[in-house]
Amino acid sequence: MNITGKNLIAGEWSGDTTNGFSAMNAVTNQAMNEKFADASEQEIDQAIGKANQAFYSYSQLSAEKRALFLRTIGEQILALGDDLVTMACAETGLPAMRIQGERGRTIGQLGLFANLLEQGEYQAVVDLADANRQPLPKPETRLGYLPLGAVAVFAASNFPLAFSTAGGDTASALAAGCPVVMKAHAAHPGTAELVAQAINKAIEICSIDAGVFSLIQGKNYGISSQIVTHPLIKAVGFTGSERVGMILQRQINERAEPIPFYGELGSVNPQFILANKLADDAQGLAQALVASLMMAQGQFCTSPGIWAYVSDENTPVFEKSAAQAISETSAGVMLTPSMATSYNSIVAQWQNISGVECLAQGKKPEKGQEHFCSAALFATDLATFKANEALHEEVFGSSALIVRCDSQAQLMEFINLLNGSLTASIHASEQDVNIAKQVALSAAHKVGRLIYNQMPTGVEVCASMNHGGPFPASTQIRTTSVGSEAIKRFQRPICYQNMPDELLPSLLKS
Amino acid sequence: MNITGKNLIAGEWSGDTTNGFSAMNAVTNQAMNEKFADASEQEIDQAIGKANQAFYSYSQLSAEKRALFLRTIGEQILALGDDLVTMACAETGLPAMRIQGERGRTIGQLGLFANLLEQGEYQAVVDLADANRQPLPKPETRLGYLPLGAVAVFAASNFPLAFSTAGGDTASALAAGCPVVMKAHAAHPGTAELVAQAINKAIEICSIDAGVFSLIQGKNYGISSQIVTHPLIKAVGFTGSERVGMILQRQINERAEPIPFYGELGSVNPQFILANKLADDAQGLAQALVASLMMAQGQFCTSPGIWAYVSDENTPVFEKSAAQAISETSAGVMLTPSMATSYNSIVAQWQNISGVECLAQGKKPEKGQEHFCSAALFATDLATFKANEALHEEVFGSSALIVRCDSQAQLMEFINLLNGSLTASIHASEQDVNIAKQVALSAAHKVGRLIYNQMPTGVEVCASMNHGGPFPASTQIRTTSVGSEAIKRFQRPICYQNMPDELLPSLLKS
Repeated sequence: MNITGKNLIAGEWSGDTTNGFSAMNAVTNQAMNEKFADASEQEIDQAIGKANQAFYSYSQLSAEKRALFLRTIGEQILALGDDLVTMACAETGLPAMRIQGERGRTIGQLGLFANLLEQGEYQAVVDLADANRQPLPKPETRLGYLPLGAVAVFAASNFPLAFSTAGGDTASALAAGCPVVMKAHAAHPGTAELVAQAINKAIEICSIDAGVFSLIQGKNYGISSQIVTHPLIKAVGFTGSERVGMILQRQINERAEPIPFYGELGSVNPQFILANKLADDAQGLAQALVASLMMAQGQFCTSPGIWAYVSDENTPVFEKSAAQAISETSAGVMLTPSMATSYNSIVAQWQNISGVECLAQGKKPEKGQEHFCSAALFATDLATFKANEALHEEVFGSSALIVRCDSQAQLMEFINLLNGSLTASIHASEQDVNIAKQVALSAAHKVGRLIYNQMPTGVEVCASMNHGGPFPASTQIRTTSVGSEAIKRFQRPICYQNMPDELLPSLLKS
Repeated sequence: MNITGKNLIAGEWSGDTTNGFSAMNAVTNQAMNEKFADASEQEIDQAIGKANQAFYSYSQLSAEKRALFLRTIGEQILALGDDLVTMACAETGLPAMRIQGERGRTIGQLGLFANLLEQGEYQAVVDLADANRQPLPKPETRLGYLPLGAVAVFAASNFPLAFSTAGGDTASALAAGCPVVMKAHAAHPGTAELVAQAINKAIEICSIDAGVFSLIQGKNYGISSQIVTHPLIKAVGFTGSERVGMILQRQINERAEPIPFYGELGSVNPQFILANKLADDAQGLAQALVASLMMAQGQFCTSPGIWAYVSDENTPVFEKSAAQAISETSAGVMLTPSMATSYNSIVAQWQNISGVECLAQGKKPEKGQEHFCSAALFATDLATFKANEALHEEVFGSSALIVRCDSQAQLMEFINLLNGSLTASIHASEQDVNIAKQVALSAAHKVGRLIYNQMPTGVEVCASMNHGGPFPASTQIRTTSVGSEAIKRFQRPICYQNMPDELLPSLLKS
């Protein structure tokens, strides 16, 4: 495996790795061999300048050529073969099957946008002229879309492929006609470099301006700040913690020109469990929720973090089954040592909140795996939930909180207390329809995706997907980071009035 | 005419006008008789609280009922009769015909959104389930839209009806299902109250929750700050100056929850004049541009403020004709005394910029009309334009600047120097097609609407309109404040997964 450790600046590998940083092997908890160079101010400025230069030609590239470019990126990622899987597994601790699946999703996303481009990336809206209209003639107007310009994307820790170097943000920005300056995640720089190599090859194969893609490596916070405040950056995509996301948001707020910041910052994904569903199959539902919670050790943005119901004769069965399932789970590796520390610290704090009961914990880590984390299941009542803001926030990892309500009114009050989330699920039987309707109406205003009798983990990549929602799920509630609508984040409308055909973009010609 | 001078707080007229403020009669430059009460903190908090309470029921109102409500508002505005025209003319100095036309547009805008609601306010996107898909079954997902919540709207000085109390922002927010808290403009509070009376009647007639609309009067800056930072306000619409708009933007940036700020803040609307068009009819084009510039004394957001061409043998004819037309214009009344002061001060400053030539000024104000303003036409070269940031900014009023380029390369450089604008026009003949193509490609990235051989003033209210553009034209480049797409500013996507029909919104049912 050929890792340079350098930054890719518009087709040139650049930087000195001598004093570079290394990623941690997540499973062994040891620093990896490869050294990576923090990008210099000059390199970042070059990358953004070249992206801006490339914008003019790239934005005019035909939809067919952009589609071919996206598909070629996918092919080149696949051509990386097992090297990519080995590297991503080592850097993230995620199992090979998961990485292989995520690679398929990443290539699938590139293909989705390629299809969209080939089918016409948007629908033109045309109002014809009417010279005889009174009191004034009506002009001809045609509504189309233009790409925004150079886009900065920050890789996510928890999806080293699908939300990283050639992930959904990059794919949708490139599809829209925007060059991308990618900030690699310091937890998986090797994976980032391999994928950047694949993109770079696709650029060569398709004879595209190399400024269209640059990869910035770095552990230094100044790097992110320089990128998001650069006047030539016209939009930013980010998936990560609320703390880091809001630092970036505040830096972006200081810009002379406001630009959109697409930050996906956190989600508790509440699960509303209704009475007849519990009566039907308390045990099955408990096991399914624990299985969903345990996916990737709870490190999915859609992990079911808060479960709520009105206590009745079936809820003890549910709690017992869930506690049993949790206690049987093995400790698991986290994406980074700092995430493990943070998870363990929150679980320890919750043990000490008065009114919060720890129903079960997973098995303790085995010897030599002290950096692994154990699952946890807590329960509380509405009054305690109301009084403790900490309980409203996402715990990144496999911890869930049951909120026991004593009435349907309390359940409705609980919904109103929730912060925004990416998703919520309603678990109901047909007999629950009346309360399910009420829950759906209220819960809809708290989430980007409302699910019925399915688990929140797993995000379908399709035209009708919405992966966003009220803050902190997203800083831009009107947008999705998954699915074909994601392209719209990097385009904006333009109206052409009375314009002759030869001056119109091809999708708008008569 | 019955003016209370009070605030309308969810159906109740509230406030003490004893120490209230008065608008100026724009033409006479005298304070008007009516006194208006600055809203108190408590009144504002009440208005927003009631808007939030009304959100739940209003957002669930059927599209047909919302459409009827919008049409009823239009009918009630028309029923105000001449009182509205008299009041608006006095407060703004705009002539009666203009106000009557603007009233028609305002009612037309309400009707446009009513039509949209009746036809289905959005197109559902549906992906059906596939239980047999490998490796995982595919869930059913349906993409729809939800209103954001209570919206704050700020009235514009220059459109007392179409961009004010029941203007485009209010109409699109109410259409979307969002209650509106309206901040009246202190220059036309009487017009605002009359229109608020009409909305209030429509609320009664349609039996809608009175919290859906409140009118806040005030001259005190703290009022705006309290409104935009209130946690229950979920979006803000504003049309006004860059200075005031950016004060609001910075206050909004301090919120815990980011919300969209739709600010339309300024536009120079560049006019690109190509050689063969000039050769064809330099005089006719000069006269048409001056006529466009003089509309509403240059106080249109789409007023043509900068005109550019490559100097040749025809440009002196153009300049002479334009100068002649400007010199024949009478001085005109401005919307407010402070706008007149500001306009006169900028025109005086420009006289002193080295490299800027004053080609002509309109007639001086007559006796007793010293607060009226005279048009002005300036000319400069690219080097001077480049060196003086002040020349890049909108002058609110009837002043235009000609930028004389000495080559097509200079013209292209000029385009790249421009700030964002709502519109640009290309004035060309068929023989200009090659340079017109280049200008169109570059200019498109600077504007929200690109026009060919028509004037920028006059904004068609239709499905394909875009009234927005790169900053400072808009703080949210992806949105329009005019036309049917404006409704999307106040809605956001939601995906329903595996949801039974009885729990889906009507537009998404099978």
